[in-house]
Amino acid sequence: MTDRRTAILEAAARTIARRGVRGLRTEELATEAGVSTALVYYHFKDRAGILRHTLEFITHRAKQHSLAPQGTDDPLDPRELLAMALQLEFQDLPEVRENTTAWGELRASAIFEPDLREVLATASAAWVRHVAGLLTLARPTASTAELAASAERLTALREGLDARRLSGVLRPDHARELLGEAIEVELAHLTAHARP
Amino acid sequence: MTDRRTAILEAAARTIARRGVRGLRTEELATEAGVSTALVYYHFKDRAGILRHTLEFITHRAKQHSLAPQGTDDPLDPRELLAMALQLEFQDLPEVRENTTAWGELRASAIFEPDLREVLATASAAWVRHVAGLLTLARPTASTAELAASAERLTALREGLDARRLSGVLRPDHARELLGEAIEVELAHLTAHARP
Repeated sequence: MTDRRTAILEAAARTIARRGVRGLRTEELATEAGVSTALVYYHFKDRAGILRHTLEFITHRAKQHSLAPQGTDDPLDPRELLAMALQLEFQDLPEVRENTTAWGELRASAIFEPDLREVLATASAAWVRHVAGLLTLARPTASTAELAASAERLTALREGLDARRLSGVLRPDHARELLGEAIEVELAHLTAHARP
Repeated sequence: MTDRRTAILEAAARTIARRGVRGLRTEELATEAGVSTALVYYHFKDRAGILRHTLEFITHRAKQHSLAPQGTDDPLDPRELLAMALQLEFQDLPEVRENTTAWGELRASAIFEPDLREVLATASAAWVRHVAGLLTLARPTASTAELAASAERLTALREGLDARRLSGVLRPDHARELLGEAIEVELAHLTAHARP
């Protein structure tokens, strides 16, 4: 990816997190990114293209945020990996908050911008598969269907808690606590419903 | 509430569900409601006032949607009441879908419209208390803290599933199934964590 293409996507994520999708004007985006409006259109064709590629960009960044921290030699157990995959973004780092805000806003906008749906569906499915894989490590005897359903619930709960937290209705530490308990509740459920 | 005030709020909910908060212009809202722009400002003062009162209005309508259906003589058990409180809106009735879409959109907008937060917080807290009350009927021996946490998880999960469903990422019948299982998973958790 060229530097200027990346600069445009970074500026788009920043603007969407700050003012919402409705606040994203191509002219202001170009100014924010320090490029010409023509270059924005050259890379992304139109507004729908900007939104779609920004959603892909923040999905990619979210994956990097949830990678294991560097410098730990001990292998992590599945529970810790799950907590990291689902909870790390509750950390109030500005860049993580920006990413989560932009993701929630693009998801909410997909109701009115059908062009975003395919990217959103692909990203959601990949995240659910990732969490289902970690649940499988923790509960190898559970059925595939139960593991998938638990992963769907945990990721959807995470998104629901994010929306409350970002709109100021829920404290970050309480959101983290509720999600941590949800992991335990689902693991207990998977233990009780092992494959025959 | 006067008829014309109600007409404005109905038109606002309809417009937000169709085009999002960004699609709500006061002039078009007045046309949609069949009143003058001056009357909209007379009742709601400004755009923030329109959004706040529309959020209150759809919260009130959502409560009516989740009331027990008329004409049933049999008392419902707590599980059925829970299913109704959390799942009924997945029914694809146009008026229910409109209400859920407008609610999700106003919640997402609250990140950028701080004026909405107080109404949102009040409505969320009332819904969590209602669900916690139904969980208490189903599991009277569970601790108050566990009941409240279960209610917070179930209502936040419901909102997360709504967002996926409305953006076309999740089929309505699968969303309903995941939430039905979540009720069972939380009830099993509350059984296992009864008050000593």
